[in-house]
Amino acid sequence: LRDPIFRIRKFLERAWSLAIAEPKKVIHGFKVGLALSLVSLFYYMRPLYDGFGGNAMWAVMTVVVVFEYTVGATLCKCINRATGTFLAGSLGLGVHWIASHSGDKFEPIILGTSVFLLASAATFSRFIPSVKSRFDYGAMIFILTFSLVSISGYRLDKLFEMAHQRVSTIAIGTSLCIIITMLFCPTWAGNELHSLIHSNLEKLADSLDGSVAGYFTSNCNHDFSKKMESYKCVLNSKAAEDSLANFARWEPAHGPFNYWHPWKQYLKVGSALRRCGYCIGTINSSINSEFEAPEFLKKHLHNACTTLSSHASNVLRELATVMATTTKSSKINFFVGEMQHAVKELRNTMICLPNCYPTTRPPPPLECDGKAGITTKATTLSMTEILPVATVMSLLIETAVR
Amino acid sequence: LRDPIFRIRKFLERAWSLAIAEPKKVIHGFKVGLALSLVSLFYYMRPLYDGFGGNAMWAVMTVVVVFEYTVGATLCKCINRATGTFLAGSLGLGVHWIASHSGDKFEPIILGTSVFLLASAATFSRFIPSVKSRFDYGAMIFILTFSLVSISGYRLDKLFEMAHQRVSTIAIGTSLCIIITMLFCPTWAGNELHSLIHSNLEKLADSLDGSVAGYFTSNCNHDFSKKMESYKCVLNSKAAEDSLANFARWEPAHGPFNYWHPWKQYLKVGSALRRCGYCIGTINSSINSEFEAPEFLKKHLHNACTTLSSHASNVLRELATVMATTTKSSKINFFVGEMQHAVKELRNTMICLPNCYPTTRPPPPLECDGKAGITTKATTLSMTEILPVATVMSLLIETAVR
Repeated sequence: LRDPIFRIRKFLERAWSLAIAEPKKVIHGFKVGLALSLVSLFYYMRPLYDGFGGNAMWAVMTVVVVFEYTVGATLCKCINRATGTFLAGSLGLGVHWIASHSGDKFEPIILGTSVFLLASAATFSRFIPSVKSRFDYGAMIFILTFSLVSISGYRLDKLFEMAHQRVSTIAIGTSLCIIITMLFCPTWAGNELHSLIHSNLEKLADSLDGSVAGYFTSNCNHDFSKKMESYKCVLNSKAAEDSLANFARWEPAHGPFNYWHPWKQYLKVGSALRRCGYCIGTINSSINSEFEAPEFLKKHLHNACTTLSSHASNVLRELATVMATTTKSSKINFFVGEMQHAVKELRNTMICLPNCYPTTRPPPPLECDGKAGITTKATTLSMTEILPVATVMSLLIETAVR
Repeated sequence: LRDPIFRIRKFLERAWSLAIAEPKKVIHGFKVGLALSLVSLFYYMRPLYDGFGGNAMWAVMTVVVVFEYTVGATLCKCINRATGTFLAGSLGLGVHWIASHSGDKFEPIILGTSVFLLASAATFSRFIPSVKSRFDYGAMIFILTFSLVSISGYRLDKLFEMAHQRVSTIAIGTSLCIIITMLFCPTWAGNELHSLIHSNLEKLADSLDGSVAGYFTSNCNHDFSKKMESYKCVLNSKAAEDSLANFARWEPAHGPFNYWHPWKQYLKVGSALRRCGYCIGTINSSINSEFEAPEFLKKHLHNACTTLSSHASNVLRELATVMATTTKSSKINFFVGEMQHAVKELRNTMICLPNCYPTTRPPPPLECDGKAGITTKATTLSMTEILPVATVMSLLIETAVR
């Protein structure tokens, strides 16, 4: 008996913590409620009811289906719904006109085959990547409207009136959605994408610091390892980035972003960040490796590595602030220069390693040493190798952004 | 003028190649067309028309909205739609009864606030991860049905009749969908997941072979680099795996899979494969690195690395056949043993490296050498490190699978 109660309590607790963490989502809930209550006016007020009749249902349905979390997604769905309905409606009327002029015998055959063929084609087109990313919903609405119009045309003879009513109710529903979503605390997909990339930059900087420090000090408390794991979010954020960038393209100018803002560049930054994340993952896996590096080697590389990683994370943090303010920073070149200097220093430290290596240790326990030393080097190397690439990339993009 | 024609031609060509590559998707299109044509019968046949009237529209809509590519997704949506409609319908009737007994003045207020509150709560609940992954569509249908019932209840007095009609049309639509999707060339989400993981295993094996061979021979023809890049698909397949595993849970027993098939294990295998993929990515990035390894070092490590990678890819291929047949293989232990032997050999080769290192090369050009040698080691090391982990993981899971 206690199990379901416990689960419900846990569920509510999780919901509450989500609500506190992201109040925007609660506000979105209220916005949907508001839009639906407004649409209900079409039923409550008698003159409107007389005008639209049972078709007011379509306004309610439009609001429920079209209202999405971000402005871009809502706009995308609205436009998809409107064009899909319009295209399918006019095509349906055309097919219906042809069918009704070809005799009672052929009418159901023409209508049936047209529904079959167009529905099949439209369903298949939803699998084509370019259609799927932008017009998936529109294709579905096209199928729905076309089959409704061509089927119901067989029965109802006031088809034009019905089409008119449907178009006007959908227009009311979509415009209400667009007004509410843009006026009350709008959530722009572009903003979300911007802050996602920004927080990813900071997470990478954190986990880079955490991993390198963790490798050399090897005392892992809980807070520490949590920091180190944060790069994993970066690796998994590809899908979110793609859809946000897709929706951001539909949005009008808002805040610091104009209509032709280069959203695709954000995807490039995102993939550069993910490559950085892979490297940090390699560093982390060498922390958990079975081969512990010998102390003298760690000591030897400790300073160079730590300065390099702190410079690298400085660059990442500076990039994050550059993103936040969307201005060029004079500091960034300085930081990059410092980082490159640190890379050179680390290389120098590694070069003098083979020379001091055989002298400081006796040969017998070489097996473990050789391996673990290489692990350290692998770690540092993967760091030195990828970070400049990623930073140059991000820099390029930053200049493109503004 | 030629530009749009060219684009349309290109679009059609792409669609055609997709259709040839995946005929299942064309079949899915035809299945939707068939289901819609069957549903149209409700309008064409007069007795049915008299029975359901304008509500037959709901059957059409159900088919269009619910029919998904895989059986699991269709079942999931059907169940969601049915439960969402039922819950919201009964709740809506209850609220409507309370409102109609509280006087003309309070009726619209009660109805409006209930719509506002429930719609807000349901919309917010769609953001909670556990709800989102399974009941997202159900929550939407809940909002839709509840607002339709409670709003239209104010006008129409034949509410019960309407509710009855809607439930029966939805029942007809969903059962038609389920029958068609399961009888005509069903596409099981479980099967898709299975073959996705299977093909990912083979892709990893290919790109491992390709990368290591590419590193040591450094002649990159087009076919070769394509093979090397195939690990990238593996990295990006997380979202697809998640949704397929989610839908597979809804499916009844089919083919070699029973109802309680451990689909979550597939996700673990998937993440192990992705970790493998990151390592191959590291190897690849060291191929494109600015530091070319010296020839003598490459020669020294060449044999050990190639045998290791061929053994590792053998293990991956064997795992792929194990997956395909879902039986335990006696060969797998043999291959793993061979791979571990190769790992040991590579280690030995690396250990004798520091000894032969200073003697074979003069000191001046050390900088480049030291770096590049480490790159090679980094490459081989990241290979040796992660592959055993991944294979042990996969093995564990294989045993769990059957």
